[in-house]
Amino acid sequence: MINANQPEPACLLVIFGATGDLTHRKLIPALFNLTKEHLLPEHFAVVAVSRRTQSNETYHQDVYPSIAKFSRFKPESMVWEQLQARLFYYNLDFNHSEGYLEFQKFLSGLDSRFHTQGNRIFYLAVAPEFFEVIVEKLQQHRLVAHDNGSWQRVVIEKPFGHDLNSATTLNQKIAKVFPEKNIYRIDHYLGKEMLQNILVIRFANAFFEPIWNSRFIDNIQITSAETVGVETRGPYYEKSGAIRDMVQNHLLQLLALIAMEPPVSLDAEYIRDEKVKVLRSLKPWTPEAIRDNVVRGQYGPGQLDSQRVSGYRQEDRVKPDSAVETFVAMKVMIDNLRWGAMPIYLRTGKRLPAKSTEIIIEFKALPKILFQKSEQLESNLLVIRIQPQEGVFFQFNAKSPGQATLIAPVQMEFCQNCCETVNSPEAYERLLYDVIRGDSTLFTRWDEVETSWRFVDPILTAWKDSPPVFPNYSAGTWGPEAADRLLARGGRNWRQI
Amino acid sequence: MINANQPEPACLLVIFGATGDLTHRKLIPALFNLTKEHLLPEHFAVVAVSRRTQSNETYHQDVYPSIAKFSRFKPESMVWEQLQARLFYYNLDFNHSEGYLEFQKFLSGLDSRFHTQGNRIFYLAVAPEFFEVIVEKLQQHRLVAHDNGSWQRVVIEKPFGHDLNSATTLNQKIAKVFPEKNIYRIDHYLGKEMLQNILVIRFANAFFEPIWNSRFIDNIQITSAETVGVETRGPYYEKSGAIRDMVQNHLLQLLALIAMEPPVSLDAEYIRDEKVKVLRSLKPWTPEAIRDNVVRGQYGPGQLDSQRVSGYRQEDRVKPDSAVETFVAMKVMIDNLRWGAMPIYLRTGKRLPAKSTEIIIEFKALPKILFQKSEQLESNLLVIRIQPQEGVFFQFNAKSPGQATLIAPVQMEFCQNCCETVNSPEAYERLLYDVIRGDSTLFTRWDEVETSWRFVDPILTAWKDSPPVFPNYSAGTWGPEAADRLLARGGRNWRQI
Repeated sequence: MINANQPEPACLLVIFGATGDLTHRKLIPALFNLTKEHLLPEHFAVVAVSRRTQSNETYHQDVYPSIAKFSRFKPESMVWEQLQARLFYYNLDFNHSEGYLEFQKFLSGLDSRFHTQGNRIFYLAVAPEFFEVIVEKLQQHRLVAHDNGSWQRVVIEKPFGHDLNSATTLNQKIAKVFPEKNIYRIDHYLGKEMLQNILVIRFANAFFEPIWNSRFIDNIQITSAETVGVETRGPYYEKSGAIRDMVQNHLLQLLALIAMEPPVSLDAEYIRDEKVKVLRSLKPWTPEAIRDNVVRGQYGPGQLDSQRVSGYRQEDRVKPDSAVETFVAMKVMIDNLRWGAMPIYLRTGKRLPAKSTEIIIEFKALPKILFQKSEQLESNLLVIRIQPQEGVFFQFNAKSPGQATLIAPVQMEFCQNCCETVNSPEAYERLLYDVIRGDSTLFTRWDEVETSWRFVDPILTAWKDSPPVFPNYSAGTWGPEAADRLLARGGRNWRQI
Repeated sequence: MINANQPEPACLLVIFGATGDLTHRKLIPALFNLTKEHLLPEHFAVVAVSRRTQSNETYHQDVYPSIAKFSRFKPESMVWEQLQARLFYYNLDFNHSEGYLEFQKFLSGLDSRFHTQGNRIFYLAVAPEFFEVIVEKLQQHRLVAHDNGSWQRVVIEKPFGHDLNSATTLNQKIAKVFPEKNIYRIDHYLGKEMLQNILVIRFANAFFEPIWNSRFIDNIQITSAETVGVETRGPYYEKSGAIRDMVQNHLLQLLALIAMEPPVSLDAEYIRDEKVKVLRSLKPWTPEAIRDNVVRGQYGPGQLDSQRVSGYRQEDRVKPDSAVETFVAMKVMIDNLRWGAMPIYLRTGKRLPAKSTEIIIEFKALPKILFQKSEQLESNLLVIRIQPQEGVFFQFNAKSPGQATLIAPVQMEFCQNCCETVNSPEAYERLLYDVIRGDSTLFTRWDEVETSWRFVDPILTAWKDSPPVFPNYSAGTWGPEAADRLLARGGRNWRQI
């Protein structure tokens, strides 16, 4: 992580996919917020690129409503003018070589005008099929230089591959053009405030580290639940499913941060070294282990917030006999000294009863002596809430007021975004800011991506060979019963906080 | 500690000192509350005894206003009638033998009427000079039986002795009449909700015990601060001072509960066994250690809540050159494996800026690596609030929302008496309830009292030999500067929460 006092480096930010959803909803509002907060470099401009022919003015008119809608600040005209003055639209067919020649000249012109010294960030906010071609063309037409003292970075949106093989192929192509240190693979979960807070909570407090291991912790539950279905993203989801959409990236990243050893220092490489060690230590799957410890589900029609909602197979552009999973729960183990033999449960799904991402750390029950002798006491719980609420929650046992010694769980809470004066930065704001500064802590390194795919690939393979009986949970419920049995087998249950 | 489901034993409660302050402000309101909560035995009556001649009716009229004023419930007439019907006034000269003969007959009469089987609690709510004579007369006139299957208990208010010698003498006299198990020495602090909660918090949670030792804790601070001066209690305080009034009993009891090892079970004897072990393990004083580690103070005139208040020597019935301490701070050490070499700071005083009793557990600072490298982080604090607020407070470090990794302490709190629906029982309510049931957990055993006196006696002796320079702190301040230096020497400071 980087100190706030460093000067911001001059550069051009080139966004491929100027008219796409991500640019409208996330990138432009994030740039507006960074402008408002004076966090952009002095020498800086943005070039939004897509195939459509349109003027700067039209593009500005086009994106302005997104700022009003998605920025966390009011769309003040003074701030918007500042951003507008350095936001350019450029029309380019990504497949068309000549276009890149012209584009290179255009960028050089901006370099002179904005003193950006040839430093460039290429943000690929496009469908994955364009990743390879754009990167290839950038090299062919010398938009990536290796020798003149300037730097070029590439930012790649998920999905990074579709399985281990495709990810490896994609990575090889990109690695031919950009050295690993200039490749910024986005996992937007890592930009969330509370995710960044995990390392602070763990390593800036004397209280937690001594009990952060399987001697004191009984199990860890990482849940990322959504209430929405696939909405308009049917075609994408049909090729993805919950494992690729959530587990391979977000949940394994959460797991890595929660479980990692303390790093040598806070340098990005040292932090990622420790994260990848966790992923490498995940107990490898056998076919039996997958059968016993991984549960998949797909929602059927159901009731959510007192409304009838349709099943996954009835969603727009989804196959009526689709075998794609919208829910996964799994028990994983980390084979190292800190965590050996302690289960970690991952769970994610669509059309669940609540929207929430949280990590629940359940401490071991005490032996049945003293206060435990006469009463069944609740476990101590430490909960890190990632979204929508951000904060830390702690449950412990205390005496109920009154004459008798009755013990009841009490709760303490620190809520980071409950207070109205706190307006947490959006994940993309943080991530753009970090790319500009060259801080790659919150981006996934190739070995992390590779190891994550290596972990989920056997599950995808096993599933392909045995068709599921879907749907197996109703929209508005917490997934298939097998997900509860997964914990019940060990005498545990999913904690609802 | 005793299970709530046991039947309440039949008995008579005899209160010596019927017209005194304690009876009016504490005992009668507590009996009213217990009546209201149906926590008194079915076969039960109260006899309030003093020298004044008056009728039951007059006494009832006399105490009723106290219920309105000091009970935590509304003075409902139905409840008051229930209590009134079994509250009797009895006129007795404590020194007068014949009176006890008549009194014995009176009690026997009540036994028949209330089916109380000769079981009696003698509550000595009188000045300490009456303790011995009353106990002696009770024996002489056979109000204490040892052979007919009934039981008699004696409840003794503080102060229990004035030093080790006088306490030993007093105890020998009482022990001739009552076996230790029937002697209930009141330390009303032990009746407070949060004090009882200390054992629950420590031993009903897996979270705390692993870090409850000098390996993880840097120091413990126990403060009992009052804003009041001596008020109308000048003559009492002139003979007592802060050590006898607060340290020998309340603060050492708090210390024992916080520092004790887990008991064999929750039986009163096992808990007290562990408490006395802590007191026995207190590092013995040398004259040098007293000089270096014990600070005394006496308040001079000052300002409190924007009001001028006078100094101790100007208070009513206080000697104008009094050498009595109204403030004590000391560093003590417990010579055992759990706490060896870790300082515990005790502090108590009158006319301090705030009224509060709390235990602050300050965890060790982390080594200067990772987040500690660039910033000076606050220590983790766990605070147990005893009064007036009751609860648990926890401070740890988290990332401040925003782009940079700035770390700030955040607070979590569980407040037991903040919620309006919770109306904690008064200490005396709990204590009376326990005496009736024969649960002596919250009363101090002789060896605890003896060991506490053995610990403070050398300080009293040392002070007698070297007159202080008083006053040395102004009313409305946190005591003499030497109290701050006591901690500063170890690089620490008193934590204000």
